[in-house]
Amino acid sequence: MEQAFHLQYALDTFYFLVCGALVMWMAAGFTMLEAGLVRAKNTTEILTKNIALYAIACIMYMVCGYAIMYDGGIFLAGIESVDVDATLGEFAAREDGFAGGAVYSAASDFFFQVVFVATAMSIVSGAVAERMKLWAFLAFAVVMTGVIYPLEGSWTWGGNDVFGLYNLGDLGFSDFAGSGIVHMAGAAAALAGVLLLGARKGKYTKDGKINAIPGANLPLATLGTFILWMGWFGFNGGSVLKLGDIANANSVAMVFLNTNAAAAGGAVAALILARILFKKADLTMALNGALAGLVAITAEPATPTALQATLFGAVGGLIVVGSIVALDKLKIDDPVGAISVHGTVGLFGLLIVPLTNTGATFSGQIIGAVTIFAWVFIASLVVWGVLKAAMGIRVSEEDEYQGLDVVDCGLEAYPDFTGSRK
Amino acid sequence: MEQAFHLQYALDTFYFLVCGALVMWMAAGFTMLEAGLVRAKNTTEILTKNIALYAIACIMYMVCGYAIMYDGGIFLAGIESVDVDATLGEFAAREDGFAGGAVYSAASDFFFQVVFVATAMSIVSGAVAERMKLWAFLAFAVVMTGVIYPLEGSWTWGGNDVFGLYNLGDLGFSDFAGSGIVHMAGAAAALAGVLLLGARKGKYTKDGKINAIPGANLPLATLGTFILWMGWFGFNGGSVLKLGDIANANSVAMVFLNTNAAAAGGAVAALILARILFKKADLTMALNGALAGLVAITAEPATPTALQATLFGAVGGLIVVGSIVALDKLKIDDPVGAISVHGTVGLFGLLIVPLTNTGATFSGQIIGAVTIFAWVFIASLVVWGVLKAAMGIRVSEEDEYQGLDVVDCGLEAYPDFTGSRK
Amino acid sequence: MEQAFHLQYALDTFYFLVCGALVMWMAAGFTMLEAGLVRAKNTTEILTKNIALYAIACIMYMVCGYAIMYDGGIFLAGIESVDVDATLGEFAAREDGFAGGAVYSAASDFFFQVVFVATAMSIVSGAVAERMKLWAFLAFAVVMTGVIYPLEGSWTWGGNDVFGLYNLGDLGFSDFAGSGIVHMAGAAAALAGVLLLGARKGKYTKDGKINAIPGANLPLATLGTFILWMGWFGFNGGSVLKLGDIANANSVAMVFLNTNAAAAGGAVAALILARILFKKADLTMALNGALAGLVAITAEPATPTALQATLFGAVGGLIVVGSIVALDKLKIDDPVGAISVHGTVGLFGLLIVPLTNTGATFSGQIIGAVTIFAWVFIASLVVWGVLKAAMGIRVSEEDEYQGLDVVDCGLEAYPDFTGSRK
Repeated sequence: MEQAFHLQYALDTFYFLVCGALVMWMAAGFTMLEAGLVRAKNTTEILTKNIALYAIACIMYMVCGYAIMYDGGIFLAGIESVDVDATLGEFAAREDGFAGGAVYSAASDFFFQVVFVATAMSIVSGAVAERMKLWAFLAFAVVMTGVIYPLEGSWTWGGNDVFGLYNLGDLGFSDFAGSGIVHMAGAAAALAGVLLLGARKGKYTKDGKINAIPGANLPLATLGTFILWMGWFGFNGGSVLKLGDIANANSVAMVFLNTNAAAAGGAVAALILARILFKKADLTMALNGALAGLVAITAEPATPTALQATLFGAVGGLIVVGSIVALDKLKIDDPVGAISVHGTVGLFGLLIVPLTNTGATFSGQIIGAVTIFAWVFIASLVVWGVLKAAMGIRVSEEDEYQGLDVVDCGLEAYPDFTGSRK
Repeated sequence: MEQAFHLQYALDTFYFLVCGALVMWMAAGFTMLEAGLVRAKNTTEILTKNIALYAIACIMYMVCGYAIMYDGGIFLAGIESVDVDATLGEFAAREDGFAGGAVYSAASDFFFQVVFVATAMSIVSGAVAERMKLWAFLAFAVVMTGVIYPLEGSWTWGGNDVFGLYNLGDLGFSDFAGSGIVHMAGAAAALAGVLLLGARKGKYTKDGKINAIPGANLPLATLGTFILWMGWFGFNGGSVLKLGDIANANSVAMVFLNTNAAAAGGAVAALILARILFKKADLTMALNGALAGLVAITAEPATPTALQATLFGAVGGLIVVGSIVALDKLKIDDPVGAISVHGTVGLFGLLIVPLTNTGATFSGQIIGAVTIFAWVFIASLVVWGVLKAAMGIRVSEEDEYQGLDVVDCGLEAYPDFTGSRK
Repeated sequence: MEQAFHLQYALDTFYFLVCGALVMWMAAGFTMLEAGLVRAKNTTEILTKNIALYAIACIMYMVCGYAIMYDGGIFLAGIESVDVDATLGEFAAREDGFAGGAVYSAASDFFFQVVFVATAMSIVSGAVAERMKLWAFLAFAVVMTGVIYPLEGSWTWGGNDVFGLYNLGDLGFSDFAGSGIVHMAGAAAALAGVLLLGARKGKYTKDGKINAIPGANLPLATLGTFILWMGWFGFNGGSVLKLGDIANANSVAMVFLNTNAAAAGGAVAALILARILFKKADLTMALNGALAGLVAITAEPATPTALQATLFGAVGGLIVVGSIVALDKLKIDDPVGAISVHGTVGLFGLLIVPLTNTGATFSGQIIGAVTIFAWVFIASLVVWGVLKAAMGIRVSEEDEYQGLDVVDCGLEAYPDFTGSRK
């Protein structure tokens, strides 16, 4: 019994760490996806943004984010070289906070949570690419990862009342791994930025034409998608929060299976729809379709059957194609389709939870979605607005023409191929 | 005791899921390898093929492949949100199907199996690259992953008689992780396609000259090889099918060690042989040598010593160089060397099993190899033939010259570097 | 009890294998980092070097390295298909060699150790890039991975006296996962090579100017950094050497958390310092900052708090910027900054261990650092010197101008983009 408890503790901790490492890997996925979908002249900048935002997210979540989200449960100085008895003591208090009375290392819990906040922030960088000032973006990252996301997270996974007014859990809101809490939240922050920022020069011309601005490196974008697909096993699989008994192990396995199935469904559906609409096998739509499938299943990956997961993913894949086309008609310029993938499909993911999870209600899902979106969108709009007034958020027209790499970073991404090597 | 059983179940399930995620990652490896070895003008298309074939494999194996391969053990609706008792009941029935009476989540077993079928299919896309019609390829993928591979798998890992006539297991056939069942099978399907398809324009000229057509992006090809190398730990390591006791844990560890050793042996041997033959340090041969080492050890990675594994891998590395040269002389055009790596060396892998595994016989290995090759090759030839008659499998000469990216996908892979950015 | 022991053995073995696979993945990280930071014309060669050195490291460590490092504990023929009782017997003897009396598969231990030696060697290839002869480099790799590193390792992790004179452990030397034993050792070998080799043509001109030679593919360099960041969880996390009880599980989790935190601190600090010094958001400095953070925490990732880890990483990030600038002033040409990242910061990592680990002493750390550096630097200098006399280590000026890809490998890395496709 004693040794079995030790083993369970170790196994559950290791499961968290492996899943967390996979979610950390998603940062590389977003980076490659975005670097592949922008033009060569803005590539160094998007790479810099991505590695910096990940680092900032890790620091800010440690400094204050985790405390805000989980009521200071284990915070900063608390996550130190761990005294076993003390940790167990802390966890005794925390058991109510997690389904199933999880017992595992405090540090592994923090590690798993901290990579989630980076994911939320990664969603933003793609949407505002190719025209936003680097340092304004990083300033936003500080607030988003230190306050905006954690406060939102405190109302959902943290279990707190929304501004003391109502409790989402009590209303039947359920978002297993974060279709809304992470993905739609990231998209809401991105949308606020894009609206204040405006479209890239040349994207929408005065005669009403929409110009495609193809990405410079589609193998990178594809690699990024595969990385995200792989990392998502950790994102959803780790969100079961416990592995070490038969019921939970079955649940984790089902989540892996369904996550994969939904991505497959999304990729195929988007590819076929794009073939019908555009008469071409549109790779970027297939990639966004796979990601849409992943976002769609994230709110409830445990209860659907594999067939349902495939279908939910496929519908996500159809929605994302429609959303990308619609946002373009609205002249909302999102170079990588992040708002559609994570926002539109994130909402869809929330809304289908009650179809397979009887613990969730449609009204709860809608109230939760509105709460998350309203808070993150408005708070972000305020922060972007302050940054715009204080330092400006958009580069000059000349700098945009020249490319952000030279302007912001002083380094081209591909100097041997774009003709600048002397 | 009770809790120890829960833990073992959870550990074995998690082991399957981690290994499965690594095998899924191999899809990214094949994609990068192939994207690096084709010309820039055919890159978007090969990327599209790869993500689509992976998605199709996942869907078709769920729809019918798994049921065909394992007699409908746990199928479709069965892989649903799992009732623990029912699952254990099902497993009681399945225990004979796996060595050691494995007890773990049904969903984790499906997840691990489904990524294997994608691997088999990934082998095909490289060999037919740069001249096959995208949609014909995807149609083939549906049949290959839904029927051809699963039926072959049912005779080997599934334990069924071959068309009711003979049983490969009874004849002493053994293929631990699939040198023949997965890799040679994929190569057989590829060979059938290549024979019907013909060589790329300009590869073999009328005066008998063989022209090298170098790949556009060798860092991607190298990345793909490293991804495959890493993913192979899951491919072979997971094929022990159980981790949770000392004997199995030792076996899994030995498999990891030998898989790594064989790849190392293959890379070095191919590099040296290519140096002798071509007077150059041929990177693509080193990459194919590493992959050949991996394929060679796959049929029996548990019983050799580390030294034997290195040597087996090295011989695989020598064979692959010879095979690539020989196929070129036969004017069988395989842009990435997939038929040599997975077919020729896959056969070699099968034949060396009896050297270290006394449970296997040479006659059994030969009969098994002939059975797998004959079935997959003939069935594939029929399907490719039907597709050729129905819709054509080869693009027009003009389209081939222009490149499949613009023709099929409407998107160049590197628009900023190949001069088409307006 | 019996089953619990089986489970613990299996869990600890699996933990080693997963961590080992992550460290193997670091080989891909170094490859991508270096391929991104050299010029296009030297890319195939650096790719070839990296895959070959990894393979050579695996072979040489099996042939003699492991035996030298751990007194032939389990060697070559010993790592064969394992007899459980025998293995347990061997481990009974080995228990003293590892903290906590670890009991797990011998093969998993070898697998984890062998990927470390490859890491040490990977550090060298970047520093000598763009002008060293390929085969001279590979000859050095044979000696480095077969003798120089293992002997150094035998004095540290192996516990042997240094040439029978003094014992580093007794002097209070502690290097948890190898800031000095692996990283500074690799940098010492690199420095010896660079000093004998000289700078690249055009790097330092007669008028005292230092010319930046930007890398050809920054997305690859960024990908490489993310891969290393991820792989480092295995590098440091696996170095706890045991997972299966509460104290060790907490330690492993803390190591993951701190490894991540230090990288984040390093990236942000280097980015900000570079902004102040160069007025640009220098991506390569951010990448090297993240790596510096990782190297800095590697000597003691278990005892600091998350905040301390972030600060240690940040100081590492500052140091690496200063070191890169300083080495350039000394005309020590290191194309990827490897000597600064792994050498200068590796030393820093050793020196800060006593701040949080009371078992280590400053004098012990200094003596250890001097011992490691002196041995590896002098031995390497001798080997490089012999190679220089015997076969030459530097390519001709004409070959350097033309690029090593065509000269050594006969293959360009990007033929469609650098204008050579006929």
